[in-house]
Amino acid sequence: MTADAAPERLNHWVLTLSCIDSPGIVHAISGAIVAARGNISESQQFASTETGRFFMRVQIESPAQRDEFEAALEPVTARWDMSWELDEVGRPLRTLVLTSTAGHCVNDLLFRQHAGQLPVEIPLVLSNHGTLRDLVDFYGVPFESAAVTSPEAKASFEARVLEAVDAHSIELVVLARYMQILSPELCEALAGRCINIHHSFLPGFKGANPYRQAHARGVKLIGATAHFVTSDLDEGPIIEQNVVRVDHSRSVSELVAIGQDEESRTLSQAVKWFAERRVLLDGARTIIFR
Amino acid sequence: MTADAAPERLNHWVLTLSCIDSPGIVHAISGAIVAARGNISESQQFASTETGRFFMRVQIESPAQRDEFEAALEPVTARWDMSWELDEVGRPLRTLVLTSTAGHCVNDLLFRQHAGQLPVEIPLVLSNHGTLRDLVDFYGVPFESAAVTSPEAKASFEARVLEAVDAHSIELVVLARYMQILSPELCEALAGRCINIHHSFLPGFKGANPYRQAHARGVKLIGATAHFVTSDLDEGPIIEQNVVRVDHSRSVSELVAIGQDEESRTLSQAVKWFAERRVLLDGARTIIFR
Amino acid sequence: MTADAAPERLNHWVLTLSCIDSPGIVHAISGAIVAARGNISESQQFASTETGRFFMRVQIESPAQRDEFEAALEPVTARWDMSWELDEVGRPLRTLVLTSTAGHCVNDLLFRQHAGQLPVEIPLVLSNHGTLRDLVDFYGVPFESAAVTSPEAKASFEARVLEAVDAHSIELVVLARYMQILSPELCEALAGRCINIHHSFLPGFKGANPYRQAHARGVKLIGATAHFVTSDLDEGPIIEQNVVRVDHSRSVSELVAIGQDEESRTLSQAVKWFAERRVLLDGARTIIFR
Amino acid sequence: MTADAAPERLNHWVLTLSCIDSPGIVHAISGAIVAARGNISESQQFASTETGRFFMRVQIESPAQRDEFEAALEPVTARWDMSWELDEVGRPLRTLVLTSTAGHCVNDLLFRQHAGQLPVEIPLVLSNHGTLRDLVDFYGVPFESAAVTSPEAKASFEARVLEAVDAHSIELVVLARYMQILSPELCEALAGRCINIHHSFLPGFKGANPYRQAHARGVKLIGATAHFVTSDLDEGPIIEQNVVRVDHSRSVSELVAIGQDEESRTLSQAVKWFAERRVLLDGARTIIFR
Repeated sequence: MTADAAPERLNHWVLTLSCIDSPGIVHAISGAIVAARGNISESQQFASTETGRFFMRVQIESPAQRDEFEAALEPVTARWDMSWELDEVGRPLRTLVLTSTAGHCVNDLLFRQHAGQLPVEIPLVLSNHGTLRDLVDFYGVPFESAAVTSPEAKASFEARVLEAVDAHSIELVVLARYMQILSPELCEALAGRCINIHHSFLPGFKGANPYRQAHARGVKLIGATAHFVTSDLDEGPIIEQNVVRVDHSRSVSELVAIGQDEESRTLSQAVKWFAERRVLLDGARTIIFR
Repeated sequence: MTADAAPERLNHWVLTLSCIDSPGIVHAISGAIVAARGNISESQQFASTETGRFFMRVQIESPAQRDEFEAALEPVTARWDMSWELDEVGRPLRTLVLTSTAGHCVNDLLFRQHAGQLPVEIPLVLSNHGTLRDLVDFYGVPFESAAVTSPEAKASFEARVLEAVDAHSIELVVLARYMQILSPELCEALAGRCINIHHSFLPGFKGANPYRQAHARGVKLIGATAHFVTSDLDEGPIIEQNVVRVDHSRSVSELVAIGQDEESRTLSQAVKWFAERRVLLDGARTIIFR
Repeated sequence: MTADAAPERLNHWVLTLSCIDSPGIVHAISGAIVAARGNISESQQFASTETGRFFMRVQIESPAQRDEFEAALEPVTARWDMSWELDEVGRPLRTLVLTSTAGHCVNDLLFRQHAGQLPVEIPLVLSNHGTLRDLVDFYGVPFESAAVTSPEAKASFEARVLEAVDAHSIELVVLARYMQILSPELCEALAGRCINIHHSFLPGFKGANPYRQAHARGVKLIGATAHFVTSDLDEGPIIEQNVVRVDHSRSVSELVAIGQDEESRTLSQAVKWFAERRVLLDGARTIIFR
Repeated sequence: MTADAAPERLNHWVLTLSCIDSPGIVHAISGAIVAARGNISESQQFASTETGRFFMRVQIESPAQRDEFEAALEPVTARWDMSWELDEVGRPLRTLVLTSTAGHCVNDLLFRQHAGQLPVEIPLVLSNHGTLRDLVDFYGVPFESAAVTSPEAKASFEARVLEAVDAHSIELVVLARYMQILSPELCEALAGRCINIHHSFLPGFKGANPYRQAHARGVKLIGATAHFVTSDLDEGPIIEQNVVRVDHSRSVSELVAIGQDEESRTLSQAVKWFAERRVLLDGARTIIFR
C-alpha cells in the first residue's frame, strides 16, 4: 500500500475521530493534515442528530512519520477533546477468533484472510470443542480447545481469552459461532472490540430453536446480524445485516444451511469494515463509513 | 384469457385444494381432470410436514363448463374430504380497501389495478379520514369516510364494513394502511380473506414510533410484511416480506419514506398472489404457489 | 429545511465542486466555509483514479446569504479552477418530463412529487401520444402532446422541447419511457441534464423485443438502468441500476410488468439523487454521493 | 434419507421427465407411481410455450425397488416418448472439478461438500496450474495438474479430462474458474453435464479485463452467471445468476473480490440444483424446479 518516491517514501494513514459537533472541525483537521504534508485520498464525515457528536474518517498520503503527524494533530484533537486513532492503511488487525463446533464462519474468515481479502492476522483460535482443529490447522493457525461444562471451566476459559488478548496484543475478538454466553465482566473488558454474529428473522423469535419457529410461522426472509457484544445479549450496536428469501418448501435443515451462508458473509463483512477502521460507535448505534 | 376453438370454446380453470395427505391424490385429481376433458397447463403441490396436509393448485384448459367439471371432481373431493375451490383464471377478485391518511399503498393498488397488473375489482374504498378522497376519485372508485373517534363510531364503521362486504360480494378486504385495530369479531368474520401490511425491522421493535427506535438503534435493513389479519395483532400468517438496505445517514423521515415504498410493493404483491389463488393456509403459515 | 434563530436565520446550502486533485483542497474549502460563518452538516468527497479529478459535496448551515458565500468561495474556486455550484438544500428542481404511452414511470414520479418525496417541480409533461393526459391532469400538471410520425414532426417536437426548457428554466429533462430517439443535437443541448431509463438484462440483448429474447434465453434476473442521455444510444453514464429475480414460469407479459416496476423505482431514485445534487460526472461515469 | 418400516424399507426416488405436451400425462405418470406403491412427496411441472414440451420432477416414497419402478413406468414413458431419469434422492453426484489458479470457487465447493450441504462426491480435481494443490489436499481430494501452454498440451489435457470422466463415471464436470476455452469437441462430449461460471455486468462488456471496463463505466451492479457449457462461448443455457451493488468508490481489485464472492455462491447453487435433479433443459433455456 506504499509507493517509493525518490526523496521520501509516502506513508498511507487512516485517521478516525469523534468529538462534540461544532463549526470549524473539518477546517482544523484538514489544516493539520496540510501541516503534516498530507494529501487526503478519502474522507467521510457524519454529524449525529442522536448524540450531537461529529465523526470523521480520513485516508491520507504523506511522507510524514507518526511522530510528525501526531504533533501536527495534537493542538486540534486537544482543542476539540477528540477521541481519535491514527493507523497505517492496510495494517492487519490482530484478531482472536472464538468458536465452537460449526465451521462455516471460521472457514470463511480463514479463507478470506488467506486470500488477502481480509486485513487481519489471526494468531490463535480458541474453542470450547475440538471439532474444528483440522480446519484451523490447515490454515496454519494455532488452535486451542477446552470444554466449558461448568462455571469453573467457563471462568477458566474466559481467563484464557483475556490472557491471549494480552499476550497477542489482540485488537479484535470475533465470536464465530461461539455458543457460550460471555460473562458481563468479559463483555465489559472487550467493549467495542468484540463482534458476534447471530441469525435474524422478521419477526424475531424468542427462545430455543428459532429456525423451527421460523419454519412453523412460514417466514419469507431469513438473515443474519453482526453486532458488537454487550452484556445485553444480542442487543449490541448493529454493524451489518443481510437477509435472503425462502419459501414454504424449505425444511428446517435447509433454513439452517441458508442461514449459515448469511452468517458467514455478514460476519466477514463486519470484520473487514472494522479492520479497515470503518466502524465507529455513536452511542447505541454504529456509523459505517463504507 | 380464453381462446376460440372451432367446435368448443376452451375455458381456463384454476383449481385449489387441500386435504390430509395420502397416496393416490394426484392420480385421482388428474383422472377427474381427464374425465372433464381438461389439460393441465400449470400445477404445483406441497405436502406439509407441519400439519400433514396436502396442498395443490392446478390450472386447466378445458371445454367443460362448471357443472361438468364439478361433477367430475365430486367423487374425488368427497373421498378425500377436500377443501377446494374452482375458479376462472384471471377473474377479477371483488376487493374492498380500507385506508386512513397515508396514500402510498392505495395509490399503488389503484394504479396497478388500472394498468391491468392486478386482477381485482374495487367497488369501494372505506376510510376513517377524508384525506384520500381525490386520489380515489381519480380512479373512479367510490369512496366513503367516517371518523372513528369513539367506541360507538368504531362499531358503526365496522358494521359498515360488513355491510359492504355483503352488498358487494367482497372476496378480499385489504387494509392499505388502515390505522385502526380491528375488533376480534371483525377479524373472525374476515378470517382468511383480510390482508394487512406493516413495517418490519430486524430486530423487531415494540411500542410507538418504531422508525425512531430503528434510527436510534442503527438498523441496516428495514422492510415490510404482508400477512393475514388475525385477532393476534400483527401475528397472522405471513404472505410476503421485503427489506431494503439503509445506513446511519438516513433521517427518521427518510426511513419512513423508504419503508413506505416497501409497504406498497409488498402489499400489492400479496394481493396479486391472493387474487391469483396462489395463497393457501397451512395452519399458522401460508403456502405460496408462485 | 431552515430554522429560525433570534438574530439571524440559518440558510442551508449544498455546495458541489470538482477540480484536478491536489493537496490542500479540503482545507481551503473548509476555510472558505468558516469564513462564511458556515457549519458543515454533511460532506462527501472522492478522488478519481480514472480522471485524476477531485469531487466534493458539502451541506452547510450558515446565516450567510448567497453573495457573502460566493465571495468567500471565489478565491478558492479560482485558485483550483473548480467547476462548482451552490444551491439551497431542498429547492425543487425545475423538471420537464417527456413520455409516450406507458404510464408507470410518469405515475411514480408524479405520485412521489405530490407526496413530498421527490424535490422537483414539474411545470410541463410533453408526449408524442395523448394516452396519459388524464393521469397527468389528475396531478394538476400541464400536458401537451404532438404526434412524432415524420422527420418534420420530430424536428418540431424537439424544438418545442428546447423552447419549454428555455421558457420554464428547466434544469432536468426526464425521459419517462419516451419512445423516440433524441437527435444528436438535442442530446448535445441537454448534455448532463437529461436522464433516461431502460430495461437491463444479463446478458444484454440487441435488437427488438428484448423481453422476448430474455424469455427465450431463460434469464434469471431482469432489471433497469437509469443513465444520462448521450448521442451514443443507451450508453451514457450510469446513475442507478436495479434487478429482480425471475424464473422460467414467467410469461413475456409478466416479465414486462416486472421490468416496469424496476424501471419506475430506478428512474425515481435517479431523479431524486440528481435533484439533491448527489450525482456528479467523472468522464464516462458518475460519482453518486448517497 | 430413508426410513425403516417394519415390513419394507421405503425408498426415496426422484423422477425427472420431459416429452411433447398433451393431455393425460400427469394422470398416467401418477397412475404408474400408484402402481409402484409410491406416494408423491414433492412434484413440479411446467409446460413450455417456447418448445411445446412438458417437464416434470417428482419425488416419491415407495417400498418398490428400481426394477419394479421401471416396469411400472415403462408403458407410460414409451407411449409419450419421454426422456426420463429415475434416481435416488440424495445420492451424491459424481463430479469432476476443473480449475486454474483462483481458489474461491473450489474452496466454496469443497467446504460445502465437506459440510454436507452439497450432494456431490468429487473423486478428482484437474488443473492447468499447481497453485491450488494444498487447498484440495486438505479436503482429501486427489489433485492433478498439467500445464496447458501449447495446442498439444491442450489436447493432452482434454484427453485426460475425458479419460477421468470415463474412469470415475463422472456425471457432472464443473469449471471452477478453469481459465481455458474448451475445444468444440469437448463441449460436445460434455453437453448438458458441464457447468461454467463467469462474471456478469449490466451492460455486458466484451474483450479483456471486464472489471476494468466496468470500473471505467461506473456500473452500479456486478454479478455472476452459472450456465451450461456450449461451444458458443459464455452463451449456454443459464442456470443461476446473482448480482450485488457496488459504487464509484470501489477500486478494480475490490470489484474483483466482490465479483468472486458472487461467483462462488452462484456456482455452488447451480451445482446443488443440478445434483438434486432440479435443472432440466428446454432448448436454449433451463427449467429450474427449486
